[in-house]
Amino acid sequence: MRLLTFRGEGGTRAGRLDGDAVTPLDAPDVGALLGAGPDWRDRAASAAGRPVPLADLDLAPVVPRPSKIICVGLNYTPHIAETGLDTPEYPTLFAKFARSLVGPADPIVLPAASTAMDWEAELAVVVGRTVRGADRAGARAAIAGYTVANDVSARDFQRRTTQWLQGKTFDSTTPLGPALVTGDEVGDAADLEVTCSVDGEVMQRGRTSTMLFPPEEIVSYVSGIVTLDPGDVLLTGTPAGIGDSRVPPVRLRPGHVVTTEIEGLGVLRNRCSK
Amino acid sequence: MRLLTFRGEGGTRAGRLDGDAVTPLDAPDVGALLGAGPDWRDRAASAAGRPVPLADLDLAPVVPRPSKIICVGLNYTPHIAETGLDTPEYPTLFAKFARSLVGPADPIVLPAASTAMDWEAELAVVVGRTVRGADRAGARAAIAGYTVANDVSARDFQRRTTQWLQGKTFDSTTPLGPALVTGDEVGDAADLEVTCSVDGEVMQRGRTSTMLFPPEEIVSYVSGIVTLDPGDVLLTGTPAGIGDSRVPPVRLRPGHVVTTEIEGLGVLRNRCSK
Repeated sequence: MRLLTFRGEGGTRAGRLDGDAVTPLDAPDVGALLGAGPDWRDRAASAAGRPVPLADLDLAPVVPRPSKIICVGLNYTPHIAETGLDTPEYPTLFAKFARSLVGPADPIVLPAASTAMDWEAELAVVVGRTVRGADRAGARAAIAGYTVANDVSARDFQRRTTQWLQGKTFDSTTPLGPALVTGDEVGDAADLEVTCSVDGEVMQRGRTSTMLFPPEEIVSYVSGIVTLDPGDVLLTGTPAGIGDSRVPPVRLRPGHVVTTEIEGLGVLRNRCSK
Repeated sequence: MRLLTFRGEGGTRAGRLDGDAVTPLDAPDVGALLGAGPDWRDRAASAAGRPVPLADLDLAPVVPRPSKIICVGLNYTPHIAETGLDTPEYPTLFAKFARSLVGPADPIVLPAASTAMDWEAELAVVVGRTVRGADRAGARAAIAGYTVANDVSARDFQRRTTQWLQGKTFDSTTPLGPALVTGDEVGDAADLEVTCSVDGEVMQRGRTSTMLFPPEEIVSYVSGIVTLDPGDVLLTGTPAGIGDSRVPPVRLRPGHVVTTEIEGLGVLRNRCSK
């Protein structure tokens, strides 16, 4: 099943995607759909309104207002190598806030204050139920599905201090979507190709199978610290090929089009704006 | 004016504190009161319900579900000295999530997974209006008021990786309250004594006047990165005297009573539980 959030008059609405048709659901967004109870699959599957063509819709971030966005740094073996850092024993966790999210075709707003904006294509995990202290099986059961994100980062702000948050949560910098895809459709996202292109040039190409900490392990680990809630989003790290590791470094500029794609999950296409 | 959030049948309720009497307000909590519009002072001041004695109330975190909790590390000059780190040029920012909050008399739940729980008494700033890119005057106008927090930290998890988040956001570890106090009552919190005691022994004693980045500067800086929303909470760092800097280090144990007090703002009294 594929679920998305689209914009309409007076706000957003959740929808179920079947082929190129979207059936509106009785929830303002996918986060609210998940938050209304663990029977969300049945509620989404049984909806039978009049479908609208996907092409006619303006998509919002698939979960517009997660109560938590938790990101993992340094999770793809080849990316760890390009940074020159040691292989971590534990997941490196940091946060971003919902204000940073944009939809799959929205502009990425490059902040005037930064001169070092960079891309990070990422598999995103969406939590489907309240979960605390889960083992890997419990974590797997708590995952509603997967989607695509780009953890666009201000490298200069990220390095102003030891803590990365301020480089990771500028307003309107993090595309998320287009759809939540349930695990049964994509082999639990265990081996999907992840790519990021800028103006058509492929900058990142990796496979989720090269993650150090796969999604269930991340959910299990995080749930040992803080209760995860329906609609919470976990970003699972980026493959090799970031602009910051190139010589000389490559930065995002206004007008650049960033295309982020994960096999089987969909595509984000975001133009950089001032 | 002093505002607080108390628990009742079916949920929480905001209230105005006058002396020892609390007048219930027409909002489920102080965050919702602020979020309902910039006339929150008038709405709170004009409420005239039947007051209840403060002593009869079970207080919740003054803002139970902020959309953001942003913390500043290394902000008191004497605390920077005790850590041995350089004086930072920019505020060091990290996040915690609302799941970590507890009320002013609730237990601090020491996680079984950590053996290094520590205290950090902090002045907390509560945002009163949506604000982006504010100068210091704009930042000052965006501050609804001040309250008391303890950024209780799992030092072992904080140091597992370079990023502190996982040591800062364990469920039910961060007392916040008892009341939001508007700046006019406390000289804009510019020079207040901050103390933390454990079982009656004073561990931290500092003054907000020794902050490197005072509240308006923090709000201004953060608002240059991410839009702040009503009810957002900023923790402004801790004075010297953390358990981690003692020789040997001192840790919180079940049964310890942590008392966090800021002159003019109030007291948090939290027993550590397993």
